[in-house]
Amino acid sequence: MPTNETMTILQKVNEAMNCAGAAAPVWSQTAPELRARFLETIAAEMEALASDLIQTAIQETNLDEARLNGERMRTTGQLRMYAAMLREGSWVEAAIDTALEARPDLRKMYTALGPVVVFGASNFPLAYSTAGGDTASALAAGCPVVVKAHPAHPRTSLLVAGAIDRAAAACNVPEGVFQHIEDEGFETGKALVVHPQTRAVGFTGSLSGGMALHGYAQQRPDPIPVFAEMGSVNPMLVLPEAVSKRGEAIAQACAGSITLGMGQFCTNPGLMLGIDCRGLRHFIEVLGQHITQSKSAPMLHPGIQQSYTEKLSKTLGSKGVFLAGQADAAAPSAAVAWVSGDDFLQNPHLHEEVFGPFSLMVLCKDAAQLAQALDALGGQLTCSLWAEPEDLQAMPELLDITRRKAGRIVLNGVPTGVAVAPAMTHGGPFPASTDSRFTAVGIHAVRRWVRPVSFQNFTDDLLPDELKNNNVRGIWRLVNNAWTRDDI
Amino acid sequence: MPTNETMTILQKVNEAMNCAGAAAPVWSQTAPELRARFLETIAAEMEALASDLIQTAIQETNLDEARLNGERMRTTGQLRMYAAMLREGSWVEAAIDTALEARPDLRKMYTALGPVVVFGASNFPLAYSTAGGDTASALAAGCPVVVKAHPAHPRTSLLVAGAIDRAAAACNVPEGVFQHIEDEGFETGKALVVHPQTRAVGFTGSLSGGMALHGYAQQRPDPIPVFAEMGSVNPMLVLPEAVSKRGEAIAQACAGSITLGMGQFCTNPGLMLGIDCRGLRHFIEVLGQHITQSKSAPMLHPGIQQSYTEKLSKTLGSKGVFLAGQADAAAPSAAVAWVSGDDFLQNPHLHEEVFGPFSLMVLCKDAAQLAQALDALGGQLTCSLWAEPEDLQAMPELLDITRRKAGRIVLNGVPTGVAVAPAMTHGGPFPASTDSRFTAVGIHAVRRWVRPVSFQNFTDDLLPDELKNNNVRGIWRLVNNAWTRDDI
Repeated sequence: MPTNETMTILQKVNEAMNCAGAAAPVWSQTAPELRARFLETIAAEMEALASDLIQTAIQETNLDEARLNGERMRTTGQLRMYAAMLREGSWVEAAIDTALEARPDLRKMYTALGPVVVFGASNFPLAYSTAGGDTASALAAGCPVVVKAHPAHPRTSLLVAGAIDRAAAACNVPEGVFQHIEDEGFETGKALVVHPQTRAVGFTGSLSGGMALHGYAQQRPDPIPVFAEMGSVNPMLVLPEAVSKRGEAIAQACAGSITLGMGQFCTNPGLMLGIDCRGLRHFIEVLGQHITQSKSAPMLHPGIQQSYTEKLSKTLGSKGVFLAGQADAAAPSAAVAWVSGDDFLQNPHLHEEVFGPFSLMVLCKDAAQLAQALDALGGQLTCSLWAEPEDLQAMPELLDITRRKAGRIVLNGVPTGVAVAPAMTHGGPFPASTDSRFTAVGIHAVRRWVRPVSFQNFTDDLLPDELKNNNVRGIWRLVNNAWTRDDI
Repeated sequence: MPTNETMTILQKVNEAMNCAGAAAPVWSQTAPELRARFLETIAAEMEALASDLIQTAIQETNLDEARLNGERMRTTGQLRMYAAMLREGSWVEAAIDTALEARPDLRKMYTALGPVVVFGASNFPLAYSTAGGDTASALAAGCPVVVKAHPAHPRTSLLVAGAIDRAAAACNVPEGVFQHIEDEGFETGKALVVHPQTRAVGFTGSLSGGMALHGYAQQRPDPIPVFAEMGSVNPMLVLPEAVSKRGEAIAQACAGSITLGMGQFCTNPGLMLGIDCRGLRHFIEVLGQHITQSKSAPMLHPGIQQSYTEKLSKTLGSKGVFLAGQADAAAPSAAVAWVSGDDFLQNPHLHEEVFGPFSLMVLCKDAAQLAQALDALGGQLTCSLWAEPEDLQAMPELLDITRRKAGRIVLNGVPTGVAVAPAMTHGGPFPASTDSRFTAVGIHAVRRWVRPVSFQNFTDDLLPDELKNNNVRGIWRLVNNAWTRDDI
């Protein structure tokens, strides 16, 4: 029997999801202009919160003002990007096949899946939380959204939810299109995922958290998709010619990426791989010096800080791992270490993420071991290559392996800094995400929340605007298998 | 401990999947022209099998020559469609964002997931089996394919596999790109799904079979996507004005669809819903007469035949179900029956598919009950509406409900006959499929087997052809968020 407290959670979840379910058919067929205005108004309301929002987030997350101002700009930018996508309209991927002798008239476009449950990320209290990428893309898709507040920033979440509610009221958005549920522990999330009205789930966070939700979703009588972005070690390959020509500059760039925001980004480079040589030894030395001089700051919350300290200590205590540099400020402090390729290959624990400002350099004995070590890793959000043309000519297999492992491959750059752009892939093979076929960043993130629906033999008056003979929305359509913006 | 026999299966599966895994990086990066020629050569080899293939399939499936000739044409047509898609090239959905001050150069395109396991469908021994839609789309995507032969047509499967092998040899396709595994019972399929090299699964068949495979795939240490198309009852709404104006013509069309191929299509209309009135009673009478006069034939295999007979008998014995017509030929015979809306709503068993030439008419007492009965159904591949404009004006909610329930909505037509065209959706909300976001028919079926990969800050020489500045392939690309075929 559930306890009284559990009952209360279940009742709240039940009410919210049923309300979202009732709103779903209406919201999925609202005019794009209304959805666009709603998203823009959310952005404006978040800006109107001014320093209240930033100060609250500082208190709850330990992130600094500049970072949080930047993150709000990213968040409002994403909301406006989806608004622009809705106004332009081609995102529905309209396809029209006119009738032939042996084929009826067929017209297809994307339609919303229904209510989406969003779990905010602790490390992005704005951009991947209450009004973040998952919420913005799901609302744009035409899905009602129920956000579960992240327990690490409940007041920030509530402030943003208030901004969304005001935007909804200002735009006459139907009740139930956006709802916010406070976190009352583990049961809240599970109840949201297993509720019959829930049609999809968005999550950003740990592997264990993501896989728990994925498990609940797949064990439902009717399984539903979970897009969980669960991070990775984001390996950086530091190749011989590059390290010999510009090792010190690369070390500086890497140090900046490792320590950025106290290493609390999904794309933080937690692993480096190179071929042992004098240049690489010097690189490690310089990198160690940068890290030693880096400035420490409190992490997002005590749980993350404790986890970092414990995992770092475990890694540094592993066989063959040598510290190359550590900030001497109060804990938590950034650190880099190195290990031989042999020891790395023998210890799968060293392949796992240490969430925080830490990176481990693997000194491989030759190109074959480098390829072997890279191949031993699981799926990744990113792989980066610091390489001169000669490096890639000598080891062409490295590009193939990164292409198989990662959602994004970076050449001569750091993986942190995820540009919000149509050509971005933020996702990757398991365990980076639960479904590598989608991205969580950029306009195509909307595809997580939609499915195609075909209309066969329909009269023009009964078709959605996007599929009528006259291309009233002026969108790109695949007509008889050719892209066009013309009328039919 | 596995028995000796199980060991043998596991060894075969292990060898095949490892071979597919080794072929994956090579095949994913072959020139589109080679992949296109391979698919076309498979089509030619299937044609070269001439009547041998058809006669073998007749013996194994009881389907007739005309149907199997048509199905082979569908199969070779699909193979050539994917070849054309590869030559045209835009299917990779290239997106390019050139560098801005705050954004690196980013370029994205689809890349293959890796080895795909395909389970053939018993009801389409050619078009959805060994060289069917799943195999063709996965090979086109750049994924090696391992087909598990369907136990109901092992010799047909082997003949088609031989044709594919000859095509592979003729085109110098790498070893391991296509492999064929004979069915040795339940363990074969499970071993294929849980093998570490398997990256995705395609299945067409029963709900229980699809869900078993889905379960294995989700319980893996690294879950993989399963696209299972599991059929549905494909409700047809027969609305008052339509039935009053042209009830007899509709009855004739419905009878043809219900009995087509002994009702063994995923899109067979197993349920009809209408509002009780004199016109609908007459419709049932006429439909019953057509069904009574229909010609019986043996079903695909004894298991399906027995299952049909048992489920039909159970349905006809359910409370309030009345037979309206049954072919008097030897079993299995086509049948139609009717039931009141009240009895239908009270008995969820009546909502389930009876795979075969049977359809149940639900006589609802009014429009509200019709909407309620439709809403009570699970996800569907198709919903069809026999309607005059006045019907839809009087009950606008029906279109909304069908849009929420189905992958394809048919107006004044039958759901059987799934056109192979870009605007086709063959799939739908659970339990019609395990992932409604994809179609199993048409060029977009390829999306089930690919994921986006982004290249950041790459030099032109290291980029795939599709993403180079010069649009050497002449494909449509989303460049700085605008569609173009121009160079950069």
